[in-house]
Amino acid sequence: MHIDLRSDTVTHPTQAMREAMYRAEVGDDVYYEDPTVNRLQDKTAQLTGKEAALFVPTGTMGNAIAVLTHAGRGQAVIVGDQSHIYHYEAGGPSTLGGSPMYAVPTHPNGMLDLDAVASGIADESDEHVAATALVCIENTHNRCGGKVLSVEQIEEITSLAHAHNIPVHMDGARIFNAAIALDVPISTLTRSVDSFMFCISKGLSAPIGSLLVGNKEFIRRATRIRKLLGGGMRQAGIIAAAGLVALDQMIDRLAEDHAHCKRLANGLAELPQLDVKADEVATNILIFTLLDKQQQPASDAEINRFLAKVQAQGVLLSRMGPKGIRAVTHYGIETQHIDSALSSIKRALAEA
Amino acid sequence: MHIDLRSDTVTHPTQAMREAMYRAEVGDDVYYEDPTVNRLQDKTAQLTGKEAALFVPTGTMGNAIAVLTHAGRGQAVIVGDQSHIYHYEAGGPSTLGGSPMYAVPTHPNGMLDLDAVASGIADESDEHVAATALVCIENTHNRCGGKVLSVEQIEEITSLAHAHNIPVHMDGARIFNAAIALDVPISTLTRSVDSFMFCISKGLSAPIGSLLVGNKEFIRRATRIRKLLGGGMRQAGIIAAAGLVALDQMIDRLAEDHAHCKRLANGLAELPQLDVKADEVATNILIFTLLDKQQQPASDAEINRFLAKVQAQGVLLSRMGPKGIRAVTHYGIETQHIDSALSSIKRALAEA
Amino acid sequence: MHIDLRSDTVTHPTQAMREAMYRAEVGDDVYYEDPTVNRLQDKTAQLTGKEAALFVPTGTMGNAIAVLTHAGRGQAVIVGDQSHIYHYEAGGPSTLGGSPMYAVPTHPNGMLDLDAVASGIADESDEHVAATALVCIENTHNRCGGKVLSVEQIEEITSLAHAHNIPVHMDGARIFNAAIALDVPISTLTRSVDSFMFCISKGLSAPIGSLLVGNKEFIRRATRIRKLLGGGMRQAGIIAAAGLVALDQMIDRLAEDHAHCKRLANGLAELPQLDVKADEVATNILIFTLLDKQQQPASDAEINRFLAKVQAQGVLLSRMGPKGIRAVTHYGIETQHIDSALSSIKRALAEA
Amino acid sequence: MHIDLRSDTVTHPTQAMREAMYRAEVGDDVYYEDPTVNRLQDKTAQLTGKEAALFVPTGTMGNAIAVLTHAGRGQAVIVGDQSHIYHYEAGGPSTLGGSPMYAVPTHPNGMLDLDAVASGIADESDEHVAATALVCIENTHNRCGGKVLSVEQIEEITSLAHAHNIPVHMDGARIFNAAIALDVPISTLTRSVDSFMFCISKGLSAPIGSLLVGNKEFIRRATRIRKLLGGGMRQAGIIAAAGLVALDQMIDRLAEDHAHCKRLANGLAELPQLDVKADEVATNILIFTLLDKQQQPASDAEINRFLAKVQAQGVLLSRMGPKGIRAVTHYGIETQHIDSALSSIKRALAEA
Repeated sequence: MHIDLRSDTVTHPTQAMREAMYRAEVGDDVYYEDPTVNRLQDKTAQLTGKEAALFVPTGTMGNAIAVLTHAGRGQAVIVGDQSHIYHYEAGGPSTLGGSPMYAVPTHPNGMLDLDAVASGIADESDEHVAATALVCIENTHNRCGGKVLSVEQIEEITSLAHAHNIPVHMDGARIFNAAIALDVPISTLTRSVDSFMFCISKGLSAPIGSLLVGNKEFIRRATRIRKLLGGGMRQAGIIAAAGLVALDQMIDRLAEDHAHCKRLANGLAELPQLDVKADEVATNILIFTLLDKQQQPASDAEINRFLAKVQAQGVLLSRMGPKGIRAVTHYGIETQHIDSALSSIKRALAEA
Repeated sequence: MHIDLRSDTVTHPTQAMREAMYRAEVGDDVYYEDPTVNRLQDKTAQLTGKEAALFVPTGTMGNAIAVLTHAGRGQAVIVGDQSHIYHYEAGGPSTLGGSPMYAVPTHPNGMLDLDAVASGIADESDEHVAATALVCIENTHNRCGGKVLSVEQIEEITSLAHAHNIPVHMDGARIFNAAIALDVPISTLTRSVDSFMFCISKGLSAPIGSLLVGNKEFIRRATRIRKLLGGGMRQAGIIAAAGLVALDQMIDRLAEDHAHCKRLANGLAELPQLDVKADEVATNILIFTLLDKQQQPASDAEINRFLAKVQAQGVLLSRMGPKGIRAVTHYGIETQHIDSALSSIKRALAEA
Repeated sequence: MHIDLRSDTVTHPTQAMREAMYRAEVGDDVYYEDPTVNRLQDKTAQLTGKEAALFVPTGTMGNAIAVLTHAGRGQAVIVGDQSHIYHYEAGGPSTLGGSPMYAVPTHPNGMLDLDAVASGIADESDEHVAATALVCIENTHNRCGGKVLSVEQIEEITSLAHAHNIPVHMDGARIFNAAIALDVPISTLTRSVDSFMFCISKGLSAPIGSLLVGNKEFIRRATRIRKLLGGGMRQAGIIAAAGLVALDQMIDRLAEDHAHCKRLANGLAELPQLDVKADEVATNILIFTLLDKQQQPASDAEINRFLAKVQAQGVLLSRMGPKGIRAVTHYGIETQHIDSALSSIKRALAEA
Repeated sequence: MHIDLRSDTVTHPTQAMREAMYRAEVGDDVYYEDPTVNRLQDKTAQLTGKEAALFVPTGTMGNAIAVLTHAGRGQAVIVGDQSHIYHYEAGGPSTLGGSPMYAVPTHPNGMLDLDAVASGIADESDEHVAATALVCIENTHNRCGGKVLSVEQIEEITSLAHAHNIPVHMDGARIFNAAIALDVPISTLTRSVDSFMFCISKGLSAPIGSLLVGNKEFIRRATRIRKLLGGGMRQAGIIAAAGLVALDQMIDRLAEDHAHCKRLANGLAELPQLDVKADEVATNILIFTLLDKQQQPASDAEINRFLAKVQAQGVLLSRMGPKGIRAVTHYGIETQHIDSALSSIKRALAEA
């Protein structure tokens, strides 16, 4: 059995979730008659301070629905050049929706470059240029190593966008990690964005699903797009039941994941073959770099050899970005697993 | 509590399914590591005589993936003008994939007009015309009242298409109803098509999900499209577990649904206010017409009044097509429910 | 030199057009500074009683722009099942715009089936169904043999669509043929549609170009779509100059084309090997059928042999639809060409 | 009458072009029967050392066709983050084709960052990531101030792309400016790219049109896409005739435009209120910056005031990028116009 630090998507449902799913009251959600789905959607709206929510099978679909709902065909979406939407959703907004993505630089802290956003916003006055219909942000920011956007940072972006009457969607796949890290209510983090998505899988450990959140008219239109994409599930209350448990029981414990990630980072920072910014760890994601003998970032081949050796020692890591190695802590990973992983990685490096 | 004959999508999971879901062994299916999903996919491939299968959250997504995998942007898809893909999937192939749909007449038995298919097939020789990349069929055929395409009918279409090197996808949301009605192995029904989709929800009563089936290369490419559409779920073994039960325990009992549908049709056929073709009932779907005093199809307003009165009597029916009223039998509907529904409908008609 | 009856698209510019093009005052139309383009657009708007017009390189682009301007991604467009947009524009609205086409039956007179339009119109209430954003009509109707929609017929459709707040676009590639045939001002024919396109090539004999016509806001948005499609030409005044001549000098003479087409039809109707509905000829297009010895429509191979023999006799015809043979009269075809073509076709048939 | 330095798109056809258009032999190019179009296409292929060429109404359409021909729906296109395709073609590849654009940094010399290209190329192994189907380059590079990519630079990119079996398209709207600046045959510049587009409008002064060039199979498929986009013009020989003159008579004189641009740049470089990199002028485009009193880039309002004052002095300039002011020299601009423009700009600056 590996210590699996590839992603928090590997989390298994808790016993409480299994029981909730076993007993879940269900109906046909395409008729809006699944009471458990309705309960999860209502609870989500209430918890996050928005009017309505929609249960969807994945975060990728949640983001795709958001973009297609906000942005028409041919309308541009401003995204961060390090964002999950831009890199890891198969080009969805452009492929499915005909909405070109305009990528602006992302600061290492996960923040979009505001000047680039400002100069990237286009209206309909120049027919050469796709007019902007949406700005997307990501919080916490995966490719930036789990960085958290503060309320102030979010509101700098939403103020700018709203001044041009452009809505902002937040890819909040791990928004509860941000709320815990900042120690603010989730509704404070989401109050200025027009829509956001978060996952009940990932850190919250439910097996399947995400919630898309916004105002009623947005959710009405989003429900139509969900059907189009094939996300209109039937007795979805089965898996929504786990989501209710996730919201009740699994948010506060994310602090443990953050502490574990910090512990891992501190341990790895001691190893000269690795470049680890331990003081920058903000939540449950660590991205670090393997160094070669010249203390330069190692080659692809060396990185892959390292990952294989680490795996042989019982630890799974993943790659992120051109040179990054990613470790993600999550439910099921305890302090002893971190310590064991540190030993394994040391052994793997010693072998080289 | 209503007798709900709107659709077989309203079925609840069986106790055996709930137990299987409770105990399901899971993993992260985006890493292809969910053993229950893998088991369901392998079992499906084996049962249906194809190389591979892919678990997806809905039938609509299964069809969308199939079309986008077979047909590139700008390549035409021949569909029946009464098909579910054409009418009830939000324009998916055209909207999501930029693949125009070319609709050919559907005979009342669910069969595509072969001459129209033949003259609709286009190659790349005329730049005015979108070249054909796919022919879609539907079995059983929803809007034609659950009609079954025989092996011979299917193979007439596949022979024609294959003669032009064009693949055929079968929307087999209810393909097991067809197999039971024809009393042939499922693999006989699917042997000549290049891909097909069936639902474990609907008559098979699982809460969520469908399987897309084809050869390995098709499924490899389909898996990429599933991710694009946001159908790449994580611990999907939870709901796949119900699918395994569905395939083990729920296929043969579809014969009961067919018998119930026939009983309902025979009962309704005695009512002079209804036009019911009881001898045409083939599976679990009945579509009939309400007549006005001139024995003509009733108006929309009259149909809606009738449905409301029936509902007040405890029976739910749905509409299908411009004038049709649809009743669908399914797991949970027993003989006494049919008889009770017949009485209710009689009372509703008597009230008029 | 052949007598070319394949299409009125083969017309050459007149001497007056060549002179106008030679002298045309030009500017950069992407800056809206081409005085000749502006004159053509203004003249078009005035002549047709609409607010504004836009010069585009082809009729296909004019129709594509109209559809993409009226219908958003995922919004359905109702088209006739015999229409040029549905058959001969490479699937444009669906391919380029992600707007599914919903095809309704076309009567042999070119008129859409009104009941089918009515039952095909969908709003946003059912998430399974793409909502309707546009109805398209075609006048004159190419595949129906140049049939003319009367003002009354047009207004039956526009009344129905407008009652649902749905705009109507008219593919009027040959709208001036309709106006001449009906002997009504063009503005009477176009008054109830929301947009229309007509070609200055085809019967009006200019070398290149079409006009898209509608209200100012429509044309503002259409101009953006024209740029997207690559239709924003620079010194387009060169070819617009021919359009001005076309509107001044070439409309009234379409009556001659109609007379020639009638003469051709009457001549061909005497030949027992052909099925020709001479009394149905409405404008400049004749579609007739070659019969085999059993007086049944001939096979594809026989049709192609016939066309080759006719060509060997110096006459070019084209095919239209599964069995049709099309002859189109136009500028440059005089009475003696018709008589000569009749002799040639007789000889070709005699040879068989 | 202004000295119009906004763009070389404002050029008027020469007298020789007007005469050639007046006399042009034409046919219906949708039937491939326009002899002048065929001549232009053949001459282009021969001149540039490729198999085939296709005449299209605009450069934007040429690029759109190229992208849609090379890249299927959902396949990524790597573009420079300063490229015309990315900024000024209304999002075409993504909007029309569902092909996401992946933007890599552009060096100030117009060259793509090779490391970014290398790490941006994706195959089909990771379903999260859109696979790369095309790399686009631009030569000369508009937003980089008319910079020229050398043969070596082009071949660095094509080597990298071809090593991954990925084709390269060159937006060569002004490729003849590059050839003249480098003093190499055009065929040397284009030999390693798989397709390219150049404009006969712009510096070559024809009124309308561009050529898309590649191998026969590419052009066959491109012709189908041209129809889809509405670029299949009829008697296009009229405007192709001007293209033949352009290729015969207008290429060598581009050297004059380059000398004029240099003269303008040298003159402006003496003005302290402007930041002008005169030594970097490579062809006929100059991009310079207006400075405020702190010698910082002026604000938008100041730039616009400056442009208005310059216009009042009889000179038209345009904006390019967030802060750039662009001047483009072209046919019709002679030495005395440059000197007059310099005086006007000085006066405008003196007024401030």
